[in-house]
Amino acid sequence: MRLRLDLAYDGAGFHGWARQPGLRTVQGDLETALATVLRVDEVAVTCAGRTDTGVHARGQVAHVDVDRADPQRVRRQLDGLLPDDVRVRRVVAVPDGFDARFSAVWRRYAYRIADRPEAQDPLTRGYVLAWKHRLDLDAIDRASKDLLGRHDFAAFCKRREGATTIRTLLDLAWERDADDVLVGTVRADAFCHHMVRSLVGCLVAVGEGRRPPEWAGQVLAAATRDPAVTVVPPHGLTLEEVGYPPDDELAAQAEASRRFRTLEDPA
Amino acid sequence: MRLRLDLAYDGAGFHGWARQPGLRTVQGDLETALATVLRVDEVAVTCAGRTDTGVHARGQVAHVDVDRADPQRVRRQLDGLLPDDVRVRRVVAVPDGFDARFSAVWRRYAYRIADRPEAQDPLTRGYVLAWKHRLDLDAIDRASKDLLGRHDFAAFCKRREGATTIRTLLDLAWERDADDVLVGTVRADAFCHHMVRSLVGCLVAVGEGRRPPEWAGQVLAAATRDPAVTVVPPHGLTLEEVGYPPDDELAAQAEASRRFRTLEDPA
Repeated sequence: MRLRLDLAYDGAGFHGWARQPGLRTVQGDLETALATVLRVDEVAVTCAGRTDTGVHARGQVAHVDVDRADPQRVRRQLDGLLPDDVRVRRVVAVPDGFDARFSAVWRRYAYRIADRPEAQDPLTRGYVLAWKHRLDLDAIDRASKDLLGRHDFAAFCKRREGATTIRTLLDLAWERDADDVLVGTVRADAFCHHMVRSLVGCLVAVGEGRRPPEWAGQVLAAATRDPAVTVVPPHGLTLEEVGYPPDDELAAQAEASRRFRTLEDPA
Repeated sequence: MRLRLDLAYDGAGFHGWARQPGLRTVQGDLETALATVLRVDEVAVTCAGRTDTGVHARGQVAHVDVDRADPQRVRRQLDGLLPDDVRVRRVVAVPDGFDARFSAVWRRYAYRIADRPEAQDPLTRGYVLAWKHRLDLDAIDRASKDLLGRHDFAAFCKRREGATTIRTLLDLAWERDADDVLVGTVRADAFCHHMVRSLVGCLVAVGEGRRPPEWAGQVLAAATRDPAVTVVPPHGLTLEEVGYPPDDELAAQAEASRRFRTLEDPA
């Protein structure tokens, strides 16, 4: 059976999601704790969004395959084993065909910026970027509109050999919350490496008035990494939610794929 | 001239507000930074609510008397001098008669509790108490109603020689926020020592079903410290706001008090 795990973590204490020898990572901590709970030597966990060093998550989703287990018991035991900067909020058995990574249809991130003295809050300083200059929300909004849709986002991606940089940006919206913090919501089918933090870096330059709103669209069109676009710090970024199709759709997809495999490999 | 300072701090790194020799306190850090900014040997700062060790503030108010100073410059320079767990959000010159402590007509605190797995959030763990058992919001609400109004709160106060424990509780209201965190709002003219954390300790016992809702009113009526009432941890508590009369009222009070002093001491 396959279990879905909904996770939240404070990225400050982790070298990102992906397991790396000798470094503390979310995957490493989680797989170690799961192996204890499930009384096995090793488990492999797959997640929806492999967050970078210092990036937080409130809505990370992962899956793990187990022989059999009581999801509630697994959650409670993980709660006791994991340190308090990573919490497993929910564990449920998922229908056939669910894959935390490949079933995901979108990922939603938030980037938070406190750009005025009244919005500075020591209690949230771990996940809100303090910015010295006031940002113009209207200019950022205008620039954001030019980035929506399906494009080659190579200008905002850290190059990786052979990986596509074509993505569909579904939302890029900004608002001030009740505490006057500027919150950017960024939703896409998927993201290439450093993409959210580069998009925000570009928009901050616009918000400060160092660049006109048209610049964002121009950078995008150039489709090549622009050194004038800075990558903003990781601690303002949080993976908030991952979207999946409804269960019946997942089951239908699983059935179709099983038939396809049978046709492909009749043995 | 007198300056009003609006402060926010993360209580985790401080032994409370009040200056103590050899310990890091908010008052100590602030007075040291202010002395540097104002180029004087010593300054004395008065605050609205002397928070305990580990208690946070988003809306602490303090005042300081200075020869003359540009409030904006003072704020900016404090920003650079103070560590990032205490921020001065606003500095303004105040009218005659304003006193951060004695002009305050109410203090509002929030106590935050995450009482279910879905509400656990490592990003907010510094200011939200994690609680293992689900709490019954209706029972807590019923118990809270019996505590409102003007009473002797001795049952909820750490004894101090000669200090009154009669207070007017103006609000004691509970709700679940968007993240399913239980937030208690507690507002009174003033609080005695440990009062908010004892009130919450009493209500948590009711919320867990260990005591009936009537118990809170019975503890209050006994007017003596009840060892069955626990004092909940400080990190769930935040001083959110302090209420003051309008400026013209403050000025009228200052004028009245000046006349009174002149009559008292005609020399």
